[in-house]
Amino acid sequence: MKTVFVSGTAGSGKSLLSSKLQDYYSKNGAFAAILNLDPGVENMPYTCDVDVRDHVDYVSIMQQYELGPNGAMVMANDLIASKIGDIQDQVDQVNPDYLIVDTPGQIELFAYRSSGRFIVDNISSDEKTNVFLFDGSLITSPVNFVSIALLATSIRLRLNLPTINVLTKTDLLGDKMEDILQWSTNLKTLENAVSKETDGDTYSLTTNILRGLDMGGFAQGLIPISNVSGEGFLNLEGALSRVLNLGEEVEN
Amino acid sequence: MKTVFVSGTAGSGKSLLSSKLQDYYSKNGAFAAILNLDPGVENMPYTCDVDVRDHVDYVSIMQQYELGPNGAMVMANDLIASKIGDIQDQVDQVNPDYLIVDTPGQIELFAYRSSGRFIVDNISSDEKTNVFLFDGSLITSPVNFVSIALLATSIRLRLNLPTINVLTKTDLLGDKMEDILQWSTNLKTLENAVSKETDGDTYSLTTNILRGLDMGGFAQGLIPISNVSGEGFLNLEGALSRVLNLGEEVEN
Repeated sequence: MKTVFVSGTAGSGKSLLSSKLQDYYSKNGAFAAILNLDPGVENMPYTCDVDVRDHVDYVSIMQQYELGPNGAMVMANDLIASKIGDIQDQVDQVNPDYLIVDTPGQIELFAYRSSGRFIVDNISSDEKTNVFLFDGSLITSPVNFVSIALLATSIRLRLNLPTINVLTKTDLLGDKMEDILQWSTNLKTLENAVSKETDGDTYSLTTNILRGLDMGGFAQGLIPISNVSGEGFLNLEGALSRVLNLGEEVEN
Repeated sequence: MKTVFVSGTAGSGKSLLSSKLQDYYSKNGAFAAILNLDPGVENMPYTCDVDVRDHVDYVSIMQQYELGPNGAMVMANDLIASKIGDIQDQVDQVNPDYLIVDTPGQIELFAYRSSGRFIVDNISSDEKTNVFLFDGSLITSPVNFVSIALLATSIRLRLNLPTINVLTKTDLLGDKMEDILQWSTNLKTLENAVSKETDGDTYSLTTNILRGLDMGGFAQGLIPISNVSGEGFLNLEGALSRVLNLGEEVEN
């Protein structure tokens, strides 16, 4: 089994991408299952194979511990780690070729508290990778782009997984998509764009960070995806294959 | 009026620090008020001067739009921006010397969606600054420290505010506090610590990012704070003063 964690900020399209990726694998003859790790999700665009909500009940946590929505959300996410045995048993029963893990809505509750890293480290799998979603609708400026790139890098270090960066909602971006894709592969273009938007301390901080990210091999570009039109999934599957299967494509 | 935004990951101690900072200012003869910006908070360790919950009702949002806790949380946070007029009116009536803004529990809903930057840009104030809390209990390794430092930098770029970095929960850290403080001021020490924990791609990415952050003037250190013992508030007030009052201390 190979495992694909799907991460990104709240509303970036994690659940929809998980669903579309499952469709893509299925159409190409592979058996892909989805593990929902979000204890607070209400509706999902897929039928769940393994569901953390069977093990962590957000509403009873609110009632039992007399917590507000924030506190209950934090506690529910922290409890995920303690359910790894049950989750693993269910995954083993399903026994897919690919396990797609739809991570909790608010990424910080997963990535910056202990449960996320614990699940990533302890779920039993031949290979693991992380797909991080850059929410196209949040990238309204070059400095915003750098801000999300820093978040992506922060999460990559925190989860300690090879990471594929994806740009979502490309159908909403129009001409801006080309700019964003250029920024993600060409440091000079991005520096120029930042210099037009900012100066002083922010400019100096941003450009120095960019050079650090660039030297660290960050600038491998984003894979543009539309969950609506389905564009980009061939490229995403190729990138996943290079990490998970040493380049072998899924069988037809 | 000077405004201090208090930001940090869920559970990092934002509300408690807001409360203690208000106490500190009050004891030193300044009038400090607190604006709660978290629509989902249940209990607060202070009496609120202005409360976003008077304008955004999390529970009715859940019911009215038939949303789960995640969806309602996202929507409630997004709605904050539309209430800026009402919030500003109330702040003007209170008219404090210092407005301490306790930002929403989950930082990503504030910082990475549009409402946070909108509030930061549009609240009327002579000077504004951001206090970012490094949650001491999350920094279990050098790479984790770098990960939180990247998040802090990402938020700084996103909010576009001068930022003071604070280390919280120092009373829980024991000997590790000295290590963390060294990492935050001395790049070589941090690089050495990272090299003992990691190698290959992660090491190369981390050290290059660190050099970028360092050149960008990041390594100004953390101010250690204990919300329990009250240690560190003198230093925090001094740092705030340098940003907000051009170095003048609050009157005694």
